[in-house]
Amino acid sequence: MGKRTYAIIGTGALGGFYGAKLQKAGNNVHFLLKSDYLQVKQHGLLIESKDGDFILPQVNAYNDAEKMPRCDVVVVALKTTQNHLLPQILPSVVKHDGVVLVLQNGIGIEAEISQIVSNTYILGGLCFLCSNKVSPGHIHHLDYGQIALGEYASNYLPTGITDRMREIAGDFQNAGISIELAEDLLLGRWKKLVWNIPYNGLSVILNATTDELMADIHTCQLVKQLMFEVAAGAKSTGRIIPDSFIQTMLDYTVKMTPYRTSMKIDFDECRPLEVEAIFGNSLNKAESAGVNLPQIRCLYQQLQFLNARIQNSVLT
Amino acid sequence: MGKRTYAIIGTGALGGFYGAKLQKAGNNVHFLLKSDYLQVKQHGLLIESKDGDFILPQVNAYNDAEKMPRCDVVVVALKTTQNHLLPQILPSVVKHDGVVLVLQNGIGIEAEISQIVSNTYILGGLCFLCSNKVSPGHIHHLDYGQIALGEYASNYLPTGITDRMREIAGDFQNAGISIELAEDLLLGRWKKLVWNIPYNGLSVILNATTDELMADIHTCQLVKQLMFEVAAGAKSTGRIIPDSFIQTMLDYTVKMTPYRTSMKIDFDECRPLEVEAIFGNSLNKAESAGVNLPQIRCLYQQLQFLNARIQNSVLT
Repeated sequence: MGKRTYAIIGTGALGGFYGAKLQKAGNNVHFLLKSDYLQVKQHGLLIESKDGDFILPQVNAYNDAEKMPRCDVVVVALKTTQNHLLPQILPSVVKHDGVVLVLQNGIGIEAEISQIVSNTYILGGLCFLCSNKVSPGHIHHLDYGQIALGEYASNYLPTGITDRMREIAGDFQNAGISIELAEDLLLGRWKKLVWNIPYNGLSVILNATTDELMADIHTCQLVKQLMFEVAAGAKSTGRIIPDSFIQTMLDYTVKMTPYRTSMKIDFDECRPLEVEAIFGNSLNKAESAGVNLPQIRCLYQQLQFLNARIQNSVLT
Repeated sequence: MGKRTYAIIGTGALGGFYGAKLQKAGNNVHFLLKSDYLQVKQHGLLIESKDGDFILPQVNAYNDAEKMPRCDVVVVALKTTQNHLLPQILPSVVKHDGVVLVLQNGIGIEAEISQIVSNTYILGGLCFLCSNKVSPGHIHHLDYGQIALGEYASNYLPTGITDRMREIAGDFQNAGISIELAEDLLLGRWKKLVWNIPYNGLSVILNATTDELMADIHTCQLVKQLMFEVAAGAKSTGRIIPDSFIQTMLDYTVKMTPYRTSMKIDFDECRPLEVEAIFGNSLNKAESAGVNLPQIRCLYQQLQFLNARIQNSVLT
């Protein structure tokens, strides 16, 4: 396959960070931007990172997907709330027999993308990354960064570990990004939701940090119930999340530094919330298997109300 | 039985209003107060009401239940969050064979009171009242005021309409308060919860008025689901709330003037929320019959978190 070319769709806190790391390690990377295009085209990217700051004075920047070269690996690093743009972007950017790598939260996105592109492999990555965009072209990487990588097959049948996964993992690892290979992408996605659903949801609804949620006996119990509902959702699609995993997530969060979740940051900055990808799609998957997740639905409905309110406040 | 004497336990927006109306109509009424005692003892009560303002320059005011005469009817008009005080109050105030009339929100309070007093009849009243305390001894009655009155029997067996209910209803009606007699107190309480649980809960959690909750398709749907869970709770105790009643409540609320619920007012003023009486007791009743109400539980846990937060903010 030789040296792979990368396209980064969405050069924000996440795409900008991983893309810059890949370019710094010698890969050929192409960045799609919107509002930050001129700044990045002229001045490149500045990465402030706990692992060492660096500047890329020159990057391949584009404000139009049609102008990008076809790449071996197209990294989807938009917020899922922008995924309606993907049918206009992906088909012209990904090579025949190339890879779309979805670095987004939530569940079911790979299946949606499989409807947009053909003759393409789709991989999904679960990112554990704490990173902010400080200003156009300026990204602050605060903590973590590892990715759990899996491959998508029709109906989310587990693929095991494929050569493609190993090759792309190699590129990321050479760039200093820790990678774990997941034999079953869907199981990996459900496992990430065990954390994301209770903490993202309740942090927004109750205006709370993770430590506040864990310090109160009622919300601590609610978090746990929500985690068990995620496990019931996973089970409805044939994936088993053991109780011990839930206990590990609870223990881990209690020990964590007080944390403002990504959805809470979006909310505080009046950006659209990823309610559909994280909550709506989980509910749909479970419900199409005949399984009801009433407390996740309650959070979903509360979040949609709050999401509409902030979007209206931005418009008016 | 002759002319009945009344004790008002808790002379606030509700107890002050009904007590003043009863006294104005010629009944012998005794008011228990705490912080407003001196003001009311010296200057009486001022009722500003849409039905006509009036002043009672002189009322029987007490700051100690032990000093009150035993009365025929003891009206419990405290917030349920103060009910831990009732064992110290009720036994010395109610006459042998007298009546305790519980004018509180929630469910299960009459059963708790039956453990405190003996040789006493217990009635419950569901108040539809819009009233505020403006300042000590000054009450502003904005709207409504009717009471649905029922009698408590052990295990909430329906009593039908008793002579006691008719007599007390007569006193209230003579005082200009509209009364409806309920043959089944427990059914009446569940019916009131059909409204109180969704609107009180969500108005606090989402910082919303009733019209905002009904205008959003997601919260409108959540309100409806919560109403059906209340109906499932009622059914677990043998009471049937027809679907048509739920539809009536939804239609009624859509047509209502935008309304800030009583729990939202308590929240905004950093007063303890009646979470246990309204939510906790409903959950306990259903769960002791083996019925799970997951979305009501979700609201309960969220409200307990917010309740603890405002109580801590008051203390610090």
